[in-house]
Amino acid sequence: MITPHVSRYLYEVINFGSEEELKNIQTKVALQGWIRTNRDNGNVGFLELNDGTYFKNVQIVYQKENVHFQDLSKLRTGAAISVTGELILTPDAKQPFEIKLDEFELLADAPSDYPLQKKRHSFEFLREIAHLRPKANTFNAVFRLRSELSFAIHNFFHEMGFVYVHTPIITSNDAEGAGEIFYLVTGKDNSLDDFYGKKVGITVSGQLHVEAFAQAYRDVYTFGPTFRAEASHTSRHASEFWMIEPEIAFADLEDNMDLIEECIKYCISYVLLHCQEEMDFFNKFVDKTLSDRLHDVLASEFKRITYTEAIELLEKAKADGFAFDNPDIFWGMDLATEHERYITDQVIKGPVFVTDYPREIKAFYMRENDDGKTVAACDLLVPYVGELVGGSQREERYDVLKKKMEEQGNIEGLEWYLDLRKYGGVQTSGFGIGFDRLIMYLTGIQNIRDVQPYPRTAGSIKY
Amino acid sequence: MITPHVSRYLYEVINFGSEEELKNIQTKVALQGWIRTNRDNGNVGFLELNDGTYFKNVQIVYQKENVHFQDLSKLRTGAAISVTGELILTPDAKQPFEIKLDEFELLADAPSDYPLQKKRHSFEFLREIAHLRPKANTFNAVFRLRSELSFAIHNFFHEMGFVYVHTPIITSNDAEGAGEIFYLVTGKDNSLDDFYGKKVGITVSGQLHVEAFAQAYRDVYTFGPTFRAEASHTSRHASEFWMIEPEIAFADLEDNMDLIEECIKYCISYVLLHCQEEMDFFNKFVDKTLSDRLHDVLASEFKRITYTEAIELLEKAKADGFAFDNPDIFWGMDLATEHERYITDQVIKGPVFVTDYPREIKAFYMRENDDGKTVAACDLLVPYVGELVGGSQREERYDVLKKKMEEQGNIEGLEWYLDLRKYGGVQTSGFGIGFDRLIMYLTGIQNIRDVQPYPRTAGSIKY
Repeated sequence: MITPHVSRYLYEVINFGSEEELKNIQTKVALQGWIRTNRDNGNVGFLELNDGTYFKNVQIVYQKENVHFQDLSKLRTGAAISVTGELILTPDAKQPFEIKLDEFELLADAPSDYPLQKKRHSFEFLREIAHLRPKANTFNAVFRLRSELSFAIHNFFHEMGFVYVHTPIITSNDAEGAGEIFYLVTGKDNSLDDFYGKKVGITVSGQLHVEAFAQAYRDVYTFGPTFRAEASHTSRHASEFWMIEPEIAFADLEDNMDLIEECIKYCISYVLLHCQEEMDFFNKFVDKTLSDRLHDVLASEFKRITYTEAIELLEKAKADGFAFDNPDIFWGMDLATEHERYITDQVIKGPVFVTDYPREIKAFYMRENDDGKTVAACDLLVPYVGELVGGSQREERYDVLKKKMEEQGNIEGLEWYLDLRKYGGVQTSGFGIGFDRLIMYLTGIQNIRDVQPYPRTAGSIKY
Repeated sequence: MITPHVSRYLYEVINFGSEEELKNIQTKVALQGWIRTNRDNGNVGFLELNDGTYFKNVQIVYQKENVHFQDLSKLRTGAAISVTGELILTPDAKQPFEIKLDEFELLADAPSDYPLQKKRHSFEFLREIAHLRPKANTFNAVFRLRSELSFAIHNFFHEMGFVYVHTPIITSNDAEGAGEIFYLVTGKDNSLDDFYGKKVGITVSGQLHVEAFAQAYRDVYTFGPTFRAEASHTSRHASEFWMIEPEIAFADLEDNMDLIEECIKYCISYVLLHCQEEMDFFNKFVDKTLSDRLHDVLASEFKRITYTEAIELLEKAKADGFAFDNPDIFWGMDLATEHERYITDQVIKGPVFVTDYPREIKAFYMRENDDGKTVAACDLLVPYVGELVGGSQREERYDVLKKKMEEQGNIEGLEWYLDLRKYGGVQTSGFGIGFDRLIMYLTGIQNIRDVQPYPRTAGSIKY
């Protein structure tokens, strides 16, 4: 018996291997996989087989001379088979090689009502079959990219010596002081405090917890699931999503922005290099501007403007007659996505950090600037999307932080967080990247439900 | 101004660098870090500085001639400082180099009641200050190893082409059919189904969800937090813990055991190579048998015995007068930890897979063997610990699985899982490793509360 090959191996040797490797590749090969399509003209048949290890299918050819021709021609889309055959290089054809079938075995059949027949399915339809859609091209590409991008994140921080911290999911505090929280109850009497002795929820951010570790390891990050019980039915909100939250010690807002820029560019380079097939697919079928857009970002230096300058730009645009849906522009307002996009798409024409936001619209832990009005925050805005990353220099002064927490009434349960400032607490800075939105940005996919393996949004849960 | 160095860089160049690198290292260096100890004899002082990037401290020497001698001698444990000075190689001393201080700046002071003064603290005391204990040697070592081991896991599977899947935390089903679940409520009226329209909880396992992805990508894994609302107050149980759950397609129980063995050996090799300082520390101060034990495992081939053989061994031990706390040995029983440890420690003297457990004591998704009594499960038992990994070949036969799910009454909400068997569902196998227990195994730490950044156990939550 021939040890089965995986299609990724065959594609890599044939597309990128040395002459030596190519010469040594076995000509008798075995594959196991799922049938994407099967067609024949009575004399010759073609099976498109995908074994899950590579985005592209392998073409299996069977001839009328094969004693199993009749059985082969009846094989259905979705069925799993194993095949042995002869590997034939086809440098002039669309695919670089094909396999001339000798033997096959049906491993697992699929009925004729298998939902993923070869035709275009709507993303809405495919969302209803989340357990099967990874077999469809778009989702196969999205979830492989999701995996590669996760690895890229770990690789980026690991190479720079960051320590990865598993901040807790279950927590008794709420980092943002905002945002709806899911609370936990246990089976016995469904009371809120029967297990831990107090009301607990699932986390909205690991930032506060990871800050403590930056005071021990200098550079740290957390990367895990976070939750919001907000019932927003938009294409960009989910109630469960993954966040990347680095925290760096002995570092200010400038260091923070340098790191954000490096991280985003690394992610783009990584997927362009390691997900070539998938990125080609997205550029062809999902968003034809994707490749240009990402290459532009790679080539550009991220601009930096203050919130005050951003407001001036928006006021000028309004005076010049630009029609915003939210036309009420004033210092102190939150920027809406249309405002962010005006700045990136119309003015900067590229990624831009907006810094030094009014203290009233930002979180309590951000460092107050000397003007007494603004805080050392930085949001990265990118064309076509708006905000991609949010970060800040943290308030390291015990008295300033304590006063602010007292004002906001959130000191209870966060004494330990305040404590960090007492015991050799140095200046730290950090940021958060919504991982699912980063995938949307890198693939052109418009709905967060289509980048999550099993999307979690208000009102529906099937899996 | 000199760009600050990190101590890891200095240690690596001095301990492992080439002659060329060593020659080119700057002699004027700058460091930022936290003071672990400060002592002087009136003429010369020694600061042990840790900057978080390396387990070992850097020794900073200051002389009476330094105009700041008085200020330096008053610096307290826990305070953060920046220093510049001259790097001096000290090949004959305990530490390979020291820094002769020129200038310093106090960045953040620590009061004299800073809790981590230089003395032995009990783990129980340190658990009460989870936000500070990463600065203590043992926990600094544990959490850096936790980070490195996470990376090792991702690296292991990524190199073999596995796709990493973020299986959902929020879910409407319960993989094990056992185990207490935390349910979610939202703020509005604390009802169980007001957000998703049905009762949902947080996951006990990602296995069922990841199985669907194995039917698309062949080899996949999930690695994330899982939860149990069991109020067990043992040293091995927590209500939140991370699990590694791979799933491989076209694979049976033998393939599964091969992968488990490879994975565990990779993890051991990885931490021995990449956490040398930390592993030396554990071997010296936590468990003096650790290093020998892990090297033994690396050198051994994992044995494989059936559950039936295991019961025979235990019955023989009992007949020979071995006194078990649970002396009631019979075919069909669950193995207690003492039974598992008897087999590994006394009989096999090494790691062993126990396979083919009675169907009644194992989960519904495990493949039924032809004997009608057992299922294709495999637990990996290791000396000193007992069960480290649990896995199985999955029931791929639609009718067999359906019947079993009907018997156990858990088909509702899992129709999609059963469906996987209908649409080209091939044989898959998989396993679960409790990540926190793996860390305990690799460090010798005896309590799960001491390997989790912010431990979550029943009855207490401070962070």
